Amino acid sequence: MKIQLINPNTSQAMTETIATAARAVAARGTEIIAVCPPQGVPSIEGHFDEAIAAIGVLQRVKQGRETGVDGHIIACFGDPGLLAARELADAPVIGIAEAAMHMATLVATRFSIVTTLPRTLIIARHLLHQYGFERHCAALHAIDLPVLALEDGSGVAQQKVREQCLLAKRQDGSGAIVLGCGGMADLARELTHELAMPVIDGVSAAVKMIESLHGLGLRTSKHGDLDFPLAKPLSGVFSEFN
Amino acid sequence: MKIQLINPNTSQAMTETIATAARAVAARGTEIIAVCPPQGVPSIEGHFDEAIAAIGVLQRVKQGRETGVDGHIIACFGDPGLLAARELADAPVIGIAEAAMHMATLVATRFSIVTTLPRTLIIARHLLHQYGFERHCAALHAIDLPVLALEDGSGVAQQKVREQCLLAKRQDGSGAIVLGCGGMADLARELTHELAMPVIDGVSAAVKMIESLHGLGLRTSKHGDLDFPLAKPLSGVFSEFN
Amino acid sequence: MKIQLINPNTSQAMTETIATAARAVAARGTEIIAVCPPQGVPSIEGHFDEAIAAIGVLQRVKQGRETGVDGHIIACFGDPGLLAARELADAPVIGIAEAAMHMATLVATRFSIVTTLPRTLIIARHLLHQYGFERHCAALHAIDLPVLALEDGSGVAQQKVREQCLLAKRQDGSGAIVLGCGGMADLARELTHELAMPVIDGVSAAVKMIESLHGLGLRTSKHGDLDFPLAKPLSGVFSEFN
Amino acid sequence: MKIQLINPNTSQAMTETIATAARAVAARGTEIIAVCPPQGVPSIEGHFDEAIAAIGVLQRVKQGRETGVDGHIIACFGDPGLLAARELADAPVIGIAEAAMHMATLVATRFSIVTTLPRTLIIARHLLHQYGFERHCAALHAIDLPVLALEDGSGVAQQKVREQCLLAKRQDGSGAIVLGCGGMADLARELTHELAMPVIDGVSAAVKMIESLHGLGLRTSKHGDLDFPLAKPLSGVFSEFN
Amino acid sequence: MKIQLINPNTSQAMTETIATAARAVAARGTEIIAVCPPQGVPSIEGHFDEAIAAIGVLQRVKQGRETGVDGHIIACFGDPGLLAARELADAPVIGIAEAAMHMATLVATRFSIVTTLPRTLIIARHLLHQYGFERHCAALHAIDLPVLALEDGSGVAQQKVREQCLLAKRQDGSGAIVLGCGGMADLARELTHELAMPVIDGVSAAVKMIESLHGLGLRTSKHGDLDFPLAKPLSGVFSEFN
Amino acid sequence: MKIQLINPNTSQAMTETIATAARAVAARGTEIIAVCPPQGVPSIEGHFDEAIAAIGVLQRVKQGRETGVDGHIIACFGDPGLLAARELADAPVIGIAEAAMHMATLVATRFSIVTTLPRTLIIARHLLHQYGFERHCAALHAIDLPVLALEDGSGVAQQKVREQCLLAKRQDGSGAIVLGCGGMADLARELTHELAMPVIDGVSAAVKMIESLHGLGLRTSKHGDLDFPLAKPLSGVFSEFN
Repeated sequence: MKIQLINPNTSQAMTETIATAARAVAARGTEIIAVCPPQGVPSIEGHFDEAIAAIGVLQRVKQGRETGVDGHIIACFGDPGLLAARELADAPVIGIAEAAMHMATLVATRFSIVTTLPRTLIIARHLLHQYGFERHCAALHAIDLPVLALEDGSGVAQQKVREQCLLAKRQDGSGAIVLGCGGMADLARELTHELAMPVIDGVSAAVKMIESLHGLGLRTSKHGDLDFPLAKPLSGVFSEFN
Repeated sequence: MKIQLINPNTSQAMTETIATAARAVAARGTEIIAVCPPQGVPSIEGHFDEAIAAIGVLQRVKQGRETGVDGHIIACFGDPGLLAARELADAPVIGIAEAAMHMATLVATRFSIVTTLPRTLIIARHLLHQYGFERHCAALHAIDLPVLALEDGSGVAQQKVREQCLLAKRQDGSGAIVLGCGGMADLARELTHELAMPVIDGVSAAVKMIESLHGLGLRTSKHGDLDFPLAKPLSGVFSEFN
Repeated sequence: MKIQLINPNTSQAMTETIATAARAVAARGTEIIAVCPPQGVPSIEGHFDEAIAAIGVLQRVKQGRETGVDGHIIACFGDPGLLAARELADAPVIGIAEAAMHMATLVATRFSIVTTLPRTLIIARHLLHQYGFERHCAALHAIDLPVLALEDGSGVAQQKVREQCLLAKRQDGSGAIVLGCGGMADLARELTHELAMPVIDGVSAAVKMIESLHGLGLRTSKHGDLDFPLAKPLSGVFSEFN
Repeated sequence: MKIQLINPNTSQAMTETIATAARAVAARGTEIIAVCPPQGVPSIEGHFDEAIAAIGVLQRVKQGRETGVDGHIIACFGDPGLLAARELADAPVIGIAEAAMHMATLVATRFSIVTTLPRTLIIARHLLHQYGFERHCAALHAIDLPVLALEDGSGVAQQKVREQCLLAKRQDGSGAIVLGCGGMADLARELTHELAMPVIDGVSAAVKMIESLHGLGLRTSKHGDLDFPLAKPLSGVFSEFN
Repeated sequence: MKIQLINPNTSQAMTETIATAARAVAARGTEIIAVCPPQGVPSIEGHFDEAIAAIGVLQRVKQGRETGVDGHIIACFGDPGLLAARELADAPVIGIAEAAMHMATLVATRFSIVTTLPRTLIIARHLLHQYGFERHCAALHAIDLPVLALEDGSGVAQQKVREQCLLAKRQDGSGAIVLGCGGMADLARELTHELAMPVIDGVSAAVKMIESLHGLGLRTSKHGDLDFPLAKPLSGVFSEFN
Repeated sequence: MKIQLINPNTSQAMTETIATAARAVAARGTEIIAVCPPQGVPSIEGHFDEAIAAIGVLQRVKQGRETGVDGHIIACFGDPGLLAARELADAPVIGIAEAAMHMATLVATRFSIVTTLPRTLIIARHLLHQYGFERHCAALHAIDLPVLALEDGSGVAQQKVREQCLLAKRQDGSGAIVLGCGGMADLARELTHELAMPVIDGVSAAVKMIESLHGLGLRTSKHGDLDFPLAKPLSGVFSEFN
């Protein structure tokens, strides 16, 4: 099977980070096609960034669908454009926040989230509310560094993630930690080992979820409100969606 | 004061419908600048349409801000791009679903919603959940006609809206009705009179809310998670946002 | 238009504070008729005080209706007697807690509340729950001084409000602050400026909301459970309501 | 022990109905002192009626406290003035809606409510929300007759209650029925027998709850927000509370 | 009347502690039959322990029903086997967590919980969620000692309970405290007196609730989902339930 | 990898049905070890049945752990003993209701549930509440036949499932259907095809979830409240757990 792994931002470095994380868990026979939009935002740290990124996600989903992929992953912790992508696709579409949160509820009664900038916490809060997991989240933490600090090679951001995870373990009374950024995908295994508790990355989680849905023969429902968008003439730069 | 009234779809007819509704209630001294995106979707009936429309909304908000408007209205019942627009603006930004729902809770203990296609009901449900008004909504109704049927001149859609409002009055045990589409803006006053209960249009409601915030000296908070988007180089068609 | 601004307590000083705040934002052509009950409680700091105050509110609403006012404001942060007043009125009725909370959700994703005595916090909590805004409130703070300390001329209470607002800004992760007492109405503008974030007073907010509903032709719904009280002979001191 | 049973309306007939129901279940040694306010509303069918009735309740609670009763019951299904009464009392105070709802959750997973006029349903809804029992209530039914129809001697209202209970049993998938009016207190035992499922009257339920709290040595908490009202000079007709 | 008081663990010492607490509040004429399972777990501090204990509870409930008791109490703070026991019984069945939480909401607007090991907090959280009392609980505290420390005669655990209660009083803003373990049953009266606020033990609370339901003629509903278990041949050690 | 598939009832026929369903989706290299308890209940249709079945589940989990399985599935739609099993295991444990509900939220905005007897609906409701999926469930349906009717070879129960699925598709406004019984596991693929919408079986869903967690290196958290049960001497028939 082919999984289209969409990094919604335009960072090539991050696309590689998540591709590596995805391939590390993909089943034999699963091909990971990692892409990012040709144009958009270099990182996603707010609602505006998400709105821009959603277009790139949708372009890639359309493309993926045309090339016959078996599933799509939206690899940004805000799951930008998720429901729109589900309309556009008929294969399954999974967001990495969604994937990580679901997995966390399966191995612990409550989880903590560790993310990047404080201003992105509201996005995580809204997703918890929308997905039904508010009561399963014990606390949210921000390392107070931008997303791209995870790709600067210094390791500072990674060290801060580690510190916040340790803090969460000590303080929150939760049994698992969700890493709140695609750029943290490479840290999950090591932190799981070091902290002796599940530390969950959404990218790899999403790969397994797509594989699962594929294996079950389940695709995005086209009965009801996730049916394909109604045919209508889009104009301007959006005419590529026609 | 100047209010930028943004129709997120590209229908000129609907832009005029809502402009008329807005001007009918605007205070003396309030100028309504009605715009729609130069490119996008002709009507909004799902999450995909919303994602596309959000870009047009943001373009217009940016433009509005540069020309010094005192507030922005997003005139589509799904409030597409609302939080993103709030980041981009420092004047207040109001969505018409938000405006209508807030007003409804001020004149009735529970309200009904009458909207267009059944597939858009999920958008209204999600907004009720997000805004905190789930318990204030007694029922949702769809006329099962597309948005642009409201602009076809036949009056069929308008008649269906009227029928669903009567049904809601008889059945729902609610005290007010929220019209779930910008294209229904011209029906509120008449239906309020005919049904002898508040029938609320979000476009006019949003005008008064913007005027209110302006009068109170309240602008979108730039402290915290609605602060301006972090400066970063957008690429491609999005570079106009730089 | 005429707005009846009802201070539910009997403090003449506070009636003047709120009248000034109301007039400062009222539209040209809006007349503010500030009243308080001839008899009742000098300040409202609990459920008992509220129950007493509600009667005075209802007396004033009845009087206001007879004299043809276009809207009523209940200017105490617990919104005492709100639904009862809506039954008695056909013009719109707004409580100041309701007004401030609604406005706060329009300019920030989450807000903090700063109120007077800790024992009144439960009233704010119940209103948040009832209005649907629990998730929009990040934290509640009390200055631990009684309501009338705001009118003692010393400025001590005002200073404590300011300190709690600063604390809220630093700690809560919220984007706006709601002032939880009618007696703080005069502080909002200055604090908004000083803190560089929206600090919201319910009295002025309610004035704009009433003006808005009036401008939209929306009155309290008389269809359903806010209809006028059923005619029945009230006895004793309550016979004035017959 | 002495229980003050307060009928919040001024109907002597209803006071007797509830007194009889209360005495039928009171433990040996429990004295039921049934009172109603000397002035107020003859029946309670809305928020206005409740606000008026609350004053009478508070007068009686004060009196009851002065005469040393061991508990107070507010015998109207809206529990008017409950938290205010708890401030005024130090003995326990129970509302009959509260009592019936609590009992229902102990014998069934979900319950139905049968009440009088449709306009009172919102009061029951708000109490379910406030007490935490929304999920435990499967459905609400109204017989569409006013409260005093239960005291007109014709038996018509009683027959309608019976019909709605049968309907609830057939349709709601609930395991118990709560009678939503003090005036229905005499019907519970018979309907429990006829329907072969628990049909619960709040008056008798409240008697047992007060007896329980008394037996446990538990009184209304005076630590925190239910402490006695702050001493302040009430004016006019309210000066009796000083 | 006869109340079967079931200690779900096999500790004879704790069975006596709770029996004493129950008898101290039982009405004249109420016989307390205190039992524990002949086999099971010596203490209950997690979900596994609860699952084991539930079988012992059900054995005792069956036995109690055969000997004609008028009610059953499950005297462990997790209320293990509560709904299963209600199916098996037709007399009322009450859990002590349920009983204590209900009582607490009647004397305070919010309560705190003080329990034993931190790992049991999740059980209390789940019960609060299931019973509808999440908003009524201000905070949860654990003394971080196992259940049986309460029976070791040293008084250390009792001292820790007292300390946590004092902490809760100072910090939580709640008006009552619920003791979260049957083994704390003997502490409630004394702590209520010392702290001058209601400190509630579920064992004694449950006794009064059973007496109340009995006095009201209310039994576990056999209409619907709490009806007797469908007759089916249980095998092995469970055949005693046939 | 080895997955222990536990049928919590003692029906050999149903154990085979679910084993077949599990094997049909298991990845190459996944071994399904289908077991049921040697003693217990022949079918599970209520809380009592669940409590009995939980012991058998725990016995099998213990056995599975000792033989080194990589995950455990509890194949009854009430997920009996789930949290207890998670304490006992360190491999992942998944319930089939949980698995099906999670999967449904990934392919549709809302889902319907079709289950067996009406009395089991409350179990599904409680799980929706506990897992956070109440808002994602549009409606619940019961075929009103016992679980074992699915194994009687007549096809009547299967036909009723089909009818309820069609009804759900027409009426509920949901995009997917969850089959609410392990005994329906063989129907999902065919109904998905016939109804042209996702019809989800929890058994196969759980297999993929266990495989996913295994592939991610995620095991049940032993940090916090799902840690192994505290060591304590179990007595009688439970001593096998020592």
